[in-house]
Amino acid sequence: MGEGAGDEGNPIMTTHINIDPNTVERYIMELAEHGAHGATGVWRPVYGDAWFAAQRQVETWMQEAGLETRWDAVGNVWGRVTGANDAGRGVILTGSHIDSQLPGGRYDGALGVITPILAVKELLARFGQPERTIEVVSFCEEESSRFPTAHHWGSRAVAGEISTEDLASVVSYDGEKIGEVMQAAGFDLDAIPAIKREDIDIFIELHIEQGPILEQAGIPTAVVTGITGIRHYHLTLRGRADHAGARPMDTRRDPMAAAAEIISTVINTAHRMGRPAVTTVGRMRVEPNGAAIVPEEVYFTIDARHPDPATRELLYARHEATIKEVCERRDIEYSWTLGAEQPPRISDPALVETFVAAATEQGLNHTTMPSGAVHDANRMAGFSRMVMLFVQSKDGRSHTPDEFTYPEHAAEGVALLAAGLQKLAYGDE
Amino acid sequence: MGEGAGDEGNPIMTTHINIDPNTVERYIMELAEHGAHGATGVWRPVYGDAWFAAQRQVETWMQEAGLETRWDAVGNVWGRVTGANDAGRGVILTGSHIDSQLPGGRYDGALGVITPILAVKELLARFGQPERTIEVVSFCEEESSRFPTAHHWGSRAVAGEISTEDLASVVSYDGEKIGEVMQAAGFDLDAIPAIKREDIDIFIELHIEQGPILEQAGIPTAVVTGITGIRHYHLTLRGRADHAGARPMDTRRDPMAAAAEIISTVINTAHRMGRPAVTTVGRMRVEPNGAAIVPEEVYFTIDARHPDPATRELLYARHEATIKEVCERRDIEYSWTLGAEQPPRISDPALVETFVAAATEQGLNHTTMPSGAVHDANRMAGFSRMVMLFVQSKDGRSHTPDEFTYPEHAAEGVALLAAGLQKLAYGDE
Repeated sequence: MGEGAGDEGNPIMTTHINIDPNTVERYIMELAEHGAHGATGVWRPVYGDAWFAAQRQVETWMQEAGLETRWDAVGNVWGRVTGANDAGRGVILTGSHIDSQLPGGRYDGALGVITPILAVKELLARFGQPERTIEVVSFCEEESSRFPTAHHWGSRAVAGEISTEDLASVVSYDGEKIGEVMQAAGFDLDAIPAIKREDIDIFIELHIEQGPILEQAGIPTAVVTGITGIRHYHLTLRGRADHAGARPMDTRRDPMAAAAEIISTVINTAHRMGRPAVTTVGRMRVEPNGAAIVPEEVYFTIDARHPDPATRELLYARHEATIKEVCERRDIEYSWTLGAEQPPRISDPALVETFVAAATEQGLNHTTMPSGAVHDANRMAGFSRMVMLFVQSKDGRSHTPDEFTYPEHAAEGVALLAAGLQKLAYGDE
Repeated sequence: MGEGAGDEGNPIMTTHINIDPNTVERYIMELAEHGAHGATGVWRPVYGDAWFAAQRQVETWMQEAGLETRWDAVGNVWGRVTGANDAGRGVILTGSHIDSQLPGGRYDGALGVITPILAVKELLARFGQPERTIEVVSFCEEESSRFPTAHHWGSRAVAGEISTEDLASVVSYDGEKIGEVMQAAGFDLDAIPAIKREDIDIFIELHIEQGPILEQAGIPTAVVTGITGIRHYHLTLRGRADHAGARPMDTRRDPMAAAAEIISTVINTAHRMGRPAVTTVGRMRVEPNGAAIVPEEVYFTIDARHPDPATRELLYARHEATIKEVCERRDIEYSWTLGAEQPPRISDPALVETFVAAATEQGLNHTTMPSGAVHDANRMAGFSRMVMLFVQSKDGRSHTPDEFTYPEHAAEGVALLAAGLQKLAYGDE
């Protein structure tokens, strides 16, 4: 206390939120025990035993924090505290997912479930019942690591975007239909439509950054100004298979030569455009894939992202012009289909302002930045005001057992989330 | 006859060889019935039923031509006519292989077995017993299409390059050991060492060109001056897997970006160097191969060929400099292993001269050129004088059911082979 004692009447100081990094660390490590994989990884596909154990752990923590809990019919776990003065203002929802990549790390998704529980626990303990209703959600599925087309199954259900057909057409890598897996796990498929929510005003998702920007800047947290727009091109180039020895270079129609030129160019285009433009070629398949045969066909993906709608279109136009020019010059047939088409999602400006103000008042070292990754928040932004918070990732790693976030940074994330929630739910805003 | 009748005493005219294209066509079509695949393809893996039927057909034709036949312990079929004045001069051997790609075409290999039978048949019918011994061989295996490391199993046996270990370590795509497959087929593995020949003076292999050069020049046949040198680089580039959205372009260590730059450059290097330099990237594997993940590792092959020993080394040096420069600049770890390392094989200059002279005397439209493909002749050149003959390929296609050679061109190939054999075996040379 000492010389600071005189500030006790200051509202900023009275709401100062101190979170113990050791507590955050303990929650992270306990959750990571469910599906522990190797020294630091987790392996937690949706609807598996480790996943059930993790969701039950989350439910227990929610109850310890003072929340009323429930499971819905896709396996999302919800915790709720009803506001004292809630009429017509809609719910403030915060959460993320607890399924993982195979293997994944301890932080992706999990940190966005743990931090709300700790933040709400702190708020309820210090300030009692909020004016507005707060809910915390642990979404069942985000990574599509067991069912490749599940596409954010948990938040899809909340958006009312799961159809009866999806229950049969969403199939696991092992050939299981998601509906059958869910029924075997005890879920009532007829209750899925009732998961849809129309009373959510605000959705807040805290997540690890998954990139190196905050670490390089030496800043623990950020308020996310928007989520990038993303498009996947699934591109097929067809030329003519030829003998690698007998066919002279000047008479080839080699789709690999065209692919290499396109890949170099699209990567350089995004690089030259500057941050936050990104373009990635992560998947390729060659036919017939023989060392001594000029390929007949090369398939590859182009993942291209930008959070600004106009600049995103410019990036796509340049990529498409490159594909066209290279293939026509090299006499290569080309075609593409689009996948993962997601428009940019702008964070609600008032919410960004609230969290920036909260961070400033708390004395938290913070910045603002766009998200280059897609999250449950994308889908939630379709029917609620949305904002995300980032916590620094060590070495910018994610989707790997190597991902790591310092407990001190995670604790600052809890503090930022709690301070913003306090402003939103306790009447400051 | 008319005004040409006065030339009857000219030795060139007396040895003029006329081959009926319809006869050649009939042999090609009959052999193609064994393992027929689709409208124009063949599917004839070594030691299969279709392969046995084809080798028996070849043996019958050899006997009809007047040759004494035998099978050896790997399944090569041999036909022989002993020379009247053979002492110490060594055998003149000609042949190719009858196994196929899966599927392959009717001509690759098969034409080099059929044409010697027809050529020798013509010579024996017209000129009787030769001065020197002639043998015709139908090698059991060249394509490695059933056993990926069989590597010219038939000519390997003749070179004495099959070890006991090879019988267990050469394994089919279905996991069968070649020794066990051979035993089940009735071959005596203990007799393999005795296949080795040290009495072969000359090996002649006629083959389809497999490229477009003769067709573009409008020439049916060529005498091959040498077989290209070939090297396969099996190259692995390692960078760092990263999130395709969250990792800025300027901080990536993307092995796909490096691979694309290397592939573009090595292809352009060979193209700029000019014919007959070739470089092909036909095989690639990406890890983890996800559309939204910057790859951790990219593996690909570089097949680079040149028939001139010094120029070949220059080509390889440029490729290796490219790999090194790109990977070091992009902070990518790289390593490679070498496969399919074959030095160039220069055709015996005296044999080239003999066949060029024979073509000229026969009035055959011909040229000389190197071979960009590797053949049984490569292995035979290690212990005998070697020359190859090419017959035009339609559209330069091979290793596909689409490969085609006009019967008229194949007949000119028979005439060229017969005329050269006549000069070599009947005492002219």
